[in-house]
Amino acid sequence: MSTSTVALRAKQLQAFFALAPMKATFGMELDYDDEGNAVFDMPYNTDLCHAMKDTHGGAIATLIDNAGWFTAATRYDHWVSTSEMTVRLHEPANQEDLKATARVVRAGKRMCSTTMEVRSASGRLVATGAGTFVVSSILIEMAGAG
Amino acid sequence: MSTSTVALRAKQLQAFFALAPMKATFGMELDYDDEGNAVFDMPYNTDLCHAMKDTHGGAIATLIDNAGWFTAATRYDHWVSTSEMTVRLHEPANQEDLKATARVVRAGKRMCSTTMEVRSASGRLVATGAGTFVVSSILIEMAGAG
Amino acid sequence: MSTSTVALRAKQLQAFFALAPMKATFGMELDYDDEGNAVFDMPYNTDLCHAMKDTHGGAIATLIDNAGWFTAATRYDHWVSTSEMTVRLHEPANQEDLKATARVVRAGKRMCSTTMEVRSASGRLVATGAGTFVVSSILIEMAGAG
Amino acid sequence: MSTSTVALRAKQLQAFFALAPMKATFGMELDYDDEGNAVFDMPYNTDLCHAMKDTHGGAIATLIDNAGWFTAATRYDHWVSTSEMTVRLHEPANQEDLKATARVVRAGKRMCSTTMEVRSASGRLVATGAGTFVVSSILIEMAGAG
Repeated sequence: MSTSTVALRAKQLQAFFALAPMKATFGMELDYDDEGNAVFDMPYNTDLCHAMKDTHGGAIATLIDNAGWFTAATRYDHWVSTSEMTVRLHEPANQEDLKATARVVRAGKRMCSTTMEVRSASGRLVATGAGTFVVSSILIEMAGAG
Repeated sequence: MSTSTVALRAKQLQAFFALAPMKATFGMELDYDDEGNAVFDMPYNTDLCHAMKDTHGGAIATLIDNAGWFTAATRYDHWVSTSEMTVRLHEPANQEDLKATARVVRAGKRMCSTTMEVRSASGRLVATGAGTFVVSSILIEMAGAG
Repeated sequence: MSTSTVALRAKQLQAFFALAPMKATFGMELDYDDEGNAVFDMPYNTDLCHAMKDTHGGAIATLIDNAGWFTAATRYDHWVSTSEMTVRLHEPANQEDLKATARVVRAGKRMCSTTMEVRSASGRLVATGAGTFVVSSILIEMAGAG
Repeated sequence: MSTSTVALRAKQLQAFFALAPMKATFGMELDYDDEGNAVFDMPYNTDLCHAMKDTHGGAIATLIDNAGWFTAATRYDHWVSTSEMTVRLHEPANQEDLKATARVVRAGKRMCSTTMEVRSASGRLVATGAGTFVVSSILIEMAGAG
C-alpha cells in the first residue's frame, strides 16, 4: 500500500479503536508513527495487577497483541485476525507506565508477520513479541474510508 | 512434589489469586482439578471486548497465562515467573463464556513447561498455548503454608 | 476427511517422503499410526551432532517439523506449508535414538495446527513443539492418488 | 562483557564450531561481525532438500538455532543451552544460498534472548526466529581461552 493509504488507514483504525470497550478497561491509548506503526501507551493501572501488585503478564500480552494487530491492519484493506503470537517477558513492569511499538517483518498476500516490544517509561525492555496475522477475504468498510 | 503437597499448594494459590486486583477486572474464577491443574473460568464480559464486540485476544492470552502459571506454581515451593508463552487463536469466542485448563509437560529443576487450552461453554476449542516458567530462588511463604 | 481417505493419504505421503533427499541425510523413517498421525524414527547419527557430540537441536527441530507437516498433510487434498513452529528443548538426546509423534489440534479450512513431541528410546521427553500449517490452493496429484 | 572479551569468545567459538560434525553435514560456515553477532552461511545443498527439491524447513531452523546460540554464547563465560525457539517461514528458499544473522535482545543473568533472520543470496527474507538460551553453572574452558 502507498504511504498515504497507510496514513489514512491509521487514522481510521484510531477511530475504530475508540469503539473498543477494552480500551477503557486497560486504559490504553493508540497513536501511530510516521511509518504507520502503532504506538500504544498503557499507564500503570492497579486494576491490571496480579497478587504481588505489579502489572499482570496478560495485560502486557494484550498490549503486544494490539500493537501487532493495529500495525498489520494498516497494510491491508481487508480485515486481519491474529493467528498466533509469542510473548517473551524479560523484566517486571515495576509499576511503571508501559509503551508498546511494532513493526512489520513481512506483509504477504495472505499473512502478515510483525514483531513488537514493550518498554517501561524509564526505558527498560519489559517484553518482546512476534505475531502472525491472517488476511481475511472481508473488505473493510469504515466511516470515512475512501 | 507429593500429591498432598500439590493439593495444599493449590489451596494456597486459590487464596493468593483472591488478592489479585485483575481477578475482578477480568472476572476470572480459579479452581483446581484433582491432579492440581488450574481451571479458570471467565464469563463473557463486554468490558474485555474489542471494537467488533467479541472477547479480545489479549483477554484470552491472559487466561492462558494464568492457567499455565497457576498450574506450574503448584509443583514448586519457590516462586515461578513466566518466561515466555505462545498463544494460538483458533476460533473467535463468539461472546461465549470461556474455560481454560493446563497441564504440566515437564517440571524441571529450573524450568517448568506447560500447555494450555481455552474452550467455549459450547465446547469449541478457542485457543491453545504453551509456556515456560522459570523457578526462582525465592521460597514461598503464604498464610496457611505448612 | 474420512478415515479411509486419511489412510490413503498417509500411504501416498510415505512414498512421497521416500523421494526426499534429506531422508537419507537425517536417517529418518516415516510411519503412520492408525489415526493417520505421523511417527518419525531417527536413530542416533554422529553426522548430526554438535561439537559436544550429541544430537544438534536443529536435527530435533527438523524431526518436529516433519512430524507436524506429515500429520497435517494427511487431512487435506491440497498442499500445506509450514507457517511457523515453536520448539521447546527439555533434555539433551544423550546419544539416544529419537522418535517423534504429532497430533492435530485443529484442522481448519485455511490453517492446520498440530502439536509434536520427541522422546528418546528410553522414554525421556526430549522436546515438544507446536506448528501452524497453511493450506494452499494447489491440489495434490500423486502417483497412486485416487 | 567487554567488547574485547566478546571478540575473544567469538574466535574461540569459531574454533569450537569447527569440531561439530553437523558443520560438514549442513555445509555451514560461521563468521562473526564486529559486534560479536554470529553470521552463518549455508550454500544450497541438495542433501538438505525435501521431496519437492528445495531446502527443508528443518535445515532453516537449524541455521536459526545456530545463529542464536553462537551469538548468545559470546556474552557469557558459562555454557548456554537452547531452551526454546520459534521459527517463522516467510518464503521458500528457492534453491538459493542462505545467510543467517542474530542479535541479542537481552542478555540477563540467567537467560539470554535473541532474534534471528535468514536471507537468501538475492536478499529475500526467508525466515525469522527468536530464541531463549539458559545460562548454565558450567564454566567454559576452551583451548586458547584466556
